[in-house]
Amino acid sequence: MSSPEEQAYCLLTEYAHGFMVSQVLFAACELGVFDLLAEAPEPLGAVAVAARLGTSSHGMELLLDTCVSLKLLQAETRRGKALYQNTELSSTYLVRASPKYQGNMLRYLARTTYLCWGHLAQAVRDGRNQYPEAFGVPSDELFTAIYRSEGERLQFMRALEDVWSISGRHVLAAFDLSPFPLICDVGGDFFKDPLPEADLYILARVLHDWTDTRCSHLLARVHRACKPGGGILVIESLLDADGRGPLTTQLYSLNMVVQTEGRERTPAQYHALLAPAGFQDIQCRRTGGIYDAILARR
Amino acid sequence: MSSPEEQAYCLLTEYAHGFMVSQVLFAACELGVFDLLAEAPEPLGAVAVAARLGTSSHGMELLLDTCVSLKLLQAETRRGKALYQNTELSSTYLVRASPKYQGNMLRYLARTTYLCWGHLAQAVRDGRNQYPEAFGVPSDELFTAIYRSEGERLQFMRALEDVWSISGRHVLAAFDLSPFPLICDVGGDFFKDPLPEADLYILARVLHDWTDTRCSHLLARVHRACKPGGGILVIESLLDADGRGPLTTQLYSLNMVVQTEGRERTPAQYHALLAPAGFQDIQCRRTGGIYDAILARR
Repeated sequence: MSSPEEQAYCLLTEYAHGFMVSQVLFAACELGVFDLLAEAPEPLGAVAVAARLGTSSHGMELLLDTCVSLKLLQAETRRGKALYQNTELSSTYLVRASPKYQGNMLRYLARTTYLCWGHLAQAVRDGRNQYPEAFGVPSDELFTAIYRSEGERLQFMRALEDVWSISGRHVLAAFDLSPFPLICDVGGDFFKDPLPEADLYILARVLHDWTDTRCSHLLARVHRACKPGGGILVIESLLDADGRGPLTTQLYSLNMVVQTEGRERTPAQYHALLAPAGFQDIQCRRTGGIYDAILARR
Repeated sequence: MSSPEEQAYCLLTEYAHGFMVSQVLFAACELGVFDLLAEAPEPLGAVAVAARLGTSSHGMELLLDTCVSLKLLQAETRRGKALYQNTELSSTYLVRASPKYQGNMLRYLARTTYLCWGHLAQAVRDGRNQYPEAFGVPSDELFTAIYRSEGERLQFMRALEDVWSISGRHVLAAFDLSPFPLICDVGGDFFKDPLPEADLYILARVLHDWTDTRCSHLLARVHRACKPGGGILVIESLLDADGRGPLTTQLYSLNMVVQTEGRERTPAQYHALLAPAGFQDIQCRRTGGIYDAILARR
């Protein structure tokens, strides 16, 4: 297949099957494939993996072979039998013992985000999140829905930590933070609770959850609490100036429609929130990773 | 980002977000974006599209801009305002009036397959389909579940027709079928109903739904009904000899675990079903597309 029309059909097929690829990754993690292969002293066959993980052999063989095509596993054939082991990708990101393990994030995507996105068309119609439809929980109080059980709250927190283990050092290295001796990582019920006095307030993946109005309210509170000479570090995934990229940030912005009240924003949109709240010297730095940094002074 | 570890993280992220890309495509189709833009005499802005389709402007703008990144739409900016129109891809495959329209298949994937795949890990554990879990319908009688309502049956039929409009001519051109004047496209309740006498029986995407035992039973019935000198044309997506590709066929094979009793098979596996049923001169032809053809003589 090589005509432009056939190439377009291949691309369409790739998009249409994207959810299947996600689920292969999610299922292999959930079933413990990568952990088992990391602990095994030598490569294992599909029947052994299935027996150790308590799954069907047929389903496991298909899953493992699909992971090979996705470069999540590698296979070698010895005496006619396929033996599987982890790749660099899975050793680094999919084995629980790795410092860069992403399994909690993947589990959150599989169990919560995947279900919410089943209602994307309706979320675009309504322009609001689909928690009532996906989980039967009201969404007026956003984090009451997101933290709808202690297990769900922990899962969400661990997911955020997974991402931080990759992106944290990039965003914190974007600016020289040495002028700010006392740093407050803003969390908790920050619309109501008093904010502690600090030189720098970090709002990491906070503003993207909220409407412009609520963001302005929060930024005004931070400005009031901030020491003279202090500042604010906003960590978010930045949209391009025209809003038409990067793709990952656009998907996150749609995710905000599906799961929150907010959106991802362009540098100009963050400027338009920060300046009226009293902040100045607003600087945006792209890290080259998914999350970027914006520093502003009181 | 350019180290191998960072590249691996990008690939992982792409897999993890695959379901979001699928849903952008599904939602834009369901909301009628491509049909509206095909009928409009000129490119439209996001507010106009939202108004005409009865959706939120904010959600629609994000959806349209994400479609641009996916090459499903193109945008041009006139006097600071983005105007959207279809690309060749969407004009060919996503507009209802196009002879190659794939919207019924996408709707089926969005409404049925996406939900079943939410249970992939459990399907691999159990080695059986997840209709009871996904839809609360029993799955002992496979097509009772697949055709669980008249609407669902029609949707499934239209989806199969969409795929046929792309793949049909490739698979029918794979062999010279002129020696077979009377052709029977096998459908209906083919395990029970008498099969009409014919020179050639076409089993298109039939065997992949069933266990080896049921396939053998069906092939024996076809062999008995087949005229002397006749044959059988099996149309399926063929796995590579080692079962480790192509990716699309592997995903379809997992889909058979999630949705049916069957699997996709290698040429050797089809040979192992056809030969004991009495067929000979078994030839496999790969078309280069998703579906391939196997011809065998009585």
